[in-house]
Amino acid sequence: MRMNWVRFERDGGPGFGQLDGADIIVCAGDMFAAPSLTGERVPLANVRLLTPCVPTKMIGLWNNFAERAAKEGLQRPAHPLYFLKANSCFAANGATIRRPTGYTGQVVSEAELGIVIGRRCTAVSVAAAPEFVFGYTGVNDVTARDLMRTDPAFVHWTRAKSFDTFGVFGPTIATELDTANLRVRAVLDGQTVQDYPVSDMFFSPLEIVSHLSHDMSLEPGDVIACGTSVGAGAMPDGALIEVVIDGIGCLRNRVA
Amino acid sequence: MRMNWVRFERDGGPGFGQLDGADIIVCAGDMFAAPSLTGERVPLANVRLLTPCVPTKMIGLWNNFAERAAKEGLQRPAHPLYFLKANSCFAANGATIRRPTGYTGQVVSEAELGIVIGRRCTAVSVAAAPEFVFGYTGVNDVTARDLMRTDPAFVHWTRAKSFDTFGVFGPTIATELDTANLRVRAVLDGQTVQDYPVSDMFFSPLEIVSHLSHDMSLEPGDVIACGTSVGAGAMPDGALIEVVIDGIGCLRNRVA
Repeated sequence: MRMNWVRFERDGGPGFGQLDGADIIVCAGDMFAAPSLTGERVPLANVRLLTPCVPTKMIGLWNNFAERAAKEGLQRPAHPLYFLKANSCFAANGATIRRPTGYTGQVVSEAELGIVIGRRCTAVSVAAAPEFVFGYTGVNDVTARDLMRTDPAFVHWTRAKSFDTFGVFGPTIATELDTANLRVRAVLDGQTVQDYPVSDMFFSPLEIVSHLSHDMSLEPGDVIACGTSVGAGAMPDGALIEVVIDGIGCLRNRVA
Repeated sequence: MRMNWVRFERDGGPGFGQLDGADIIVCAGDMFAAPSLTGERVPLANVRLLTPCVPTKMIGLWNNFAERAAKEGLQRPAHPLYFLKANSCFAANGATIRRPTGYTGQVVSEAELGIVIGRRCTAVSVAAAPEFVFGYTGVNDVTARDLMRTDPAFVHWTRAKSFDTFGVFGPTIATELDTANLRVRAVLDGQTVQDYPVSDMFFSPLEIVSHLSHDMSLEPGDVIACGTSVGAGAMPDGALIEVVIDGIGCLRNRVA
């Protein structure tokens, strides 16, 4: 049965649970290891959502969509290509995306499907990968694009991707989600700017988990953003950006 | 007064304390927030050292030494250039550095000075930076060099730098360490292969902390590896590699 997991803040402390209509069924223990029901329900409207988990790392893929690669003249890579976003950049639904101080260039929104790992895994096959995937979330892989290519010898992925508030994900983690026919949409001030199918990925979510688990151990709560496709663009200051994925929800943030 | 902090494993659990000759003066609480003495001393020889802290992120600099840049035909960068190493790659003094399964290329050792952050900081000046530095550690920024440039459009820093056991640091964190006259040495099977002065850095440790804290918040325990200079090279399987920095100690690991 599909469930939507959230973390939330209430009375200054974090909690987590499952969405049930307009309520959260509050749970206790470890989200990834047989959590228990507390018997309490709280209205979603009464709490502030946190990031739906606390990753030990967030990995982001680059050049993982055929349509985008064709448009940019890129070839299908032989192995998934990826970078890390610093843990200090994580931001929840509703958080303000902050333009870096002194930076006047483009702050780009990249709407992506995020894989959430549920069990520690190292070197797993594609066939075994589903056992290690807890669910899926929405990711806005925010990027200070004009800071990437300022040095002639080094593309500065880490800097451009890791400013505080640039690692937006949520609002929920959806379990038992069939990603085959999913679409990822980005809506900027009410206008759809991205709307692409997950099926256009060079490496599917399960292939990504398998490949990456051969490169490094993946831990419960780790998030892998599967890369973005066409239409990613700059967000004007003050804009409202929404990453919308059916079954996961709408990840809504404003840019300062 | 200079102190050398270590973390260790004993009876299956972690502990931490200050080195005092051949003993550890065991402490309790938070290493970065007024820890207390427990009154216990344990011989260093009776415990296994862990990484001296648990970073929320490890940042590694590239192209930060004048001598190395001159040799490689690189210019001094306008801003520190850096990547992240995945948290799953951290390894302590004494741990085995493992060659990635199926990889037959060079496994390179890069001996580096590591800055350990002591207090959360965002956008601090160079003058204020010392308040946020807890101390310094040794880093072996292990790299699967032949995996960096396998894609024509993407230098794969993250993959090459993040295999499990590739983020070696320790054995201690030294506080009150004057880095101005320090040298960083790497000794491979008894032969010195790197021996370079910290003073040759383009960006000094305090300049690095200031610059990076403007790019992202730094957290207690975060480690910034300051980049390496000339002489970094491949480690044969079975080799013993030591990163030696006066005042910090000898970080000793064998390659499998």
